[in-house]
Amino acid sequence: MSLNQLARTVMDRIAALGRISEDPGRLTRTFCSPAMRQANDLVATWMRAAGMPVSQDAIGNLIGRLPGPDARAKTFILGSHLDTVRDAGKFDGPLGVLIAIACAQHLHDSKIHLPFALEVIGFADEEGVRYQTTYLGSKAMAGKLTERDLKRIDARGITMSDAVRAFGGNPDQLSTARRDPRQLLGYAEVHIEQGPVLEKKNQPVGVVTAIAGQTRASLRFVGHAGHAGTTPMALRHDALAAAARFIVAAETIANSTAGLVATVGQIEALPGASNVIPGEVSLTLDVRHAQDSARQKACSMLQKSARALARKYAMKMDWETVHDVPSVPCSRELSALLAKAVRRHLVKVTQLPSGAGHDAAVMSGLTPVAMLFVRCKGGISHHPAESATAKDIPVAIAVMNDFLQFLANPQPPSKKKHA
Amino acid sequence: MSLNQLARTVMDRIAALGRISEDPGRLTRTFCSPAMRQANDLVATWMRAAGMPVSQDAIGNLIGRLPGPDARAKTFILGSHLDTVRDAGKFDGPLGVLIAIACAQHLHDSKIHLPFALEVIGFADEEGVRYQTTYLGSKAMAGKLTERDLKRIDARGITMSDAVRAFGGNPDQLSTARRDPRQLLGYAEVHIEQGPVLEKKNQPVGVVTAIAGQTRASLRFVGHAGHAGTTPMALRHDALAAAARFIVAAETIANSTAGLVATVGQIEALPGASNVIPGEVSLTLDVRHAQDSARQKACSMLQKSARALARKYAMKMDWETVHDVPSVPCSRELSALLAKAVRRHLVKVTQLPSGAGHDAAVMSGLTPVAMLFVRCKGGISHHPAESATAKDIPVAIAVMNDFLQFLANPQPPSKKKHA
Repeated sequence: MSLNQLARTVMDRIAALGRISEDPGRLTRTFCSPAMRQANDLVATWMRAAGMPVSQDAIGNLIGRLPGPDARAKTFILGSHLDTVRDAGKFDGPLGVLIAIACAQHLHDSKIHLPFALEVIGFADEEGVRYQTTYLGSKAMAGKLTERDLKRIDARGITMSDAVRAFGGNPDQLSTARRDPRQLLGYAEVHIEQGPVLEKKNQPVGVVTAIAGQTRASLRFVGHAGHAGTTPMALRHDALAAAARFIVAAETIANSTAGLVATVGQIEALPGASNVIPGEVSLTLDVRHAQDSARQKACSMLQKSARALARKYAMKMDWETVHDVPSVPCSRELSALLAKAVRRHLVKVTQLPSGAGHDAAVMSGLTPVAMLFVRCKGGISHHPAESATAKDIPVAIAVMNDFLQFLANPQPPSKKKHA
Repeated sequence: MSLNQLARTVMDRIAALGRISEDPGRLTRTFCSPAMRQANDLVATWMRAAGMPVSQDAIGNLIGRLPGPDARAKTFILGSHLDTVRDAGKFDGPLGVLIAIACAQHLHDSKIHLPFALEVIGFADEEGVRYQTTYLGSKAMAGKLTERDLKRIDARGITMSDAVRAFGGNPDQLSTARRDPRQLLGYAEVHIEQGPVLEKKNQPVGVVTAIAGQTRASLRFVGHAGHAGTTPMALRHDALAAAARFIVAAETIANSTAGLVATVGQIEALPGASNVIPGEVSLTLDVRHAQDSARQKACSMLQKSARALARKYAMKMDWETVHDVPSVPCSRELSALLAKAVRRHLVKVTQLPSGAGHDAAVMSGLTPVAMLFVRCKGGISHHPAESATAKDIPVAIAVMNDFLQFLANPQPPSKKKHA
């Protein structure tokens, strides 16, 4: 198949997978659901058509494999996830699996034999919708899924263990899904950006530098409720006034730190009547940066700011850090090869951090990782309007084909520019 | 009865009325309810004991009357309301009625005959709980209650008309409740402050200068929701960031305008997830000042500020003014007499605006009004913890006794200081 045929096939398959849902009228495909079974079975046919024998591991990950030259050959993995959020878009996850299959198809069609084994993996769960915990597929591979996780129950009371068994997995032999890092060369993932940066820069693809670390905190300002008419300003302890100044501080600190994002996404003011001064405000804070030191510095400044506001307003303030995940830098070597591949097709190489988490973050515990982002429309994701432009797909496939060639053979092929 | 006996009686009666409720375990007494019937009947016995024949008007207001020297004598009214909010305190409303009865009792016991008729009124509704519209009692007197109001229905589908009829009122002859301004001398109301000013100044009572005007507005900032991790700060249109800056602006403008209060009491950020940039924020604004020009200037500055923020963040902003009530100045003459009476008992006279609405605001459409505020604990009102100090009650009664004497006879009695 030509590059354009491969790209058209990817878009057709995106549409086909978009029709496999457990909810009528919208796309929802959760871990070990009948819809996932149907999706895995369909993707397996495409893997086989690309010359890959297919297997399913103990947790339910779908694995297609082009064997290496001999039994001692190491394995390079391309992958992403096949599950979705509720009322999802069609690209988040499947695009990475389908482009990986296109690369395998290209190798198969061109009878190119790599000096290593190539696996394409469709992870069984990245979004964590069914069991309220994310990355079940990649965690099982990295040996980070525990017996305790298997005892979790879903909304209908079904344990993860039973769900995996019903899906054809093997919860009693979970460790068989674990991969030996010594047999791996690395992992690369193609994913839609889920943000507006590439669109803004008018670039079809970009190389991910790191998956940003994230701090999530819950804050509570507790002042005194009071009558909005009878309490003079000087006698107030208005929790919303303090919270508002904190939100401004978060925005200001983020604006003055390159690459930092800080978001207050939830806020609740109590008692919540138009004529009552709010006595208590709860809010969430989400801070991310590709460098942990920058994120930690920002969080410490914000904590100081919240404490200073509580003093100024003579009120109580609680700060609870509910989540603190370090950043995952992408492999310099693999990212350099990816950038080299991008340079063959585009005038410039856009490098950007990923603000969202991906399977690559978990896989980095096992093997070096790299990621290629594909431009998406308006930065919209986790929504039916999620979309990628058809003309960006051949670029992404070509970049990944070249990336695999560079991995196999560090000599640069001749230059050729797109766009 | 001595002043202290009168004061103790007031506190006993506050307690007795506090037990008359339509809700078990908490105090709720709404317009034309069986609890109101019971309260009116009990208060009527106290009015009669103070020498006043008692009547009920067409809307259900309870009226005790000490007749004047002759049929041409005009009437001065003392009053407040006997209804409550849900889960109310015991003082808001009843205190003013009971102190008025204490004044009548004092005149009766001392055989003092005023040169005018004195009425004590227990208004049937000030809080507006049952029909979602306030001041039913005083509005009927001022001729501001309409046929349309009588067609309102409560939560159980009962029209106001039927409720009034069942209570023993006369909805078909509503106009009989209307008072002729030419026969009135004025209206004075004693009320707990419902704010912290007198407590802060360590004063038992204060003279109200005006009932503040009020603007209530609903604001909506509409930006774009986005992923909290993948959307750089420069590409955001964060509705909560804009709203937070507006809340800070409201506080700043209020802090820099003497007597102004501005409150954002309700806020909602959508979609309301910790990892999503809020695309839409709705909030309420409540602005009050004793002078309409100061309030209007503040509102116009705030509207400008909201518009400027919408421009800065490239988002939409809606401002809807939902309520715009002018301030009601208290009568200079009556307030001067009230201040003179306060000066007999206290070293200094505290004058303050009322940030909350009162029956006096409606009565001012009919006749000159004055108000005396009594200190309350912690500014707490509309709450079971609402309370006034027993030792402030004799001061309030003495002030009102002297006020009536000054009304009858402008010659100052000899000085005598409390506190």
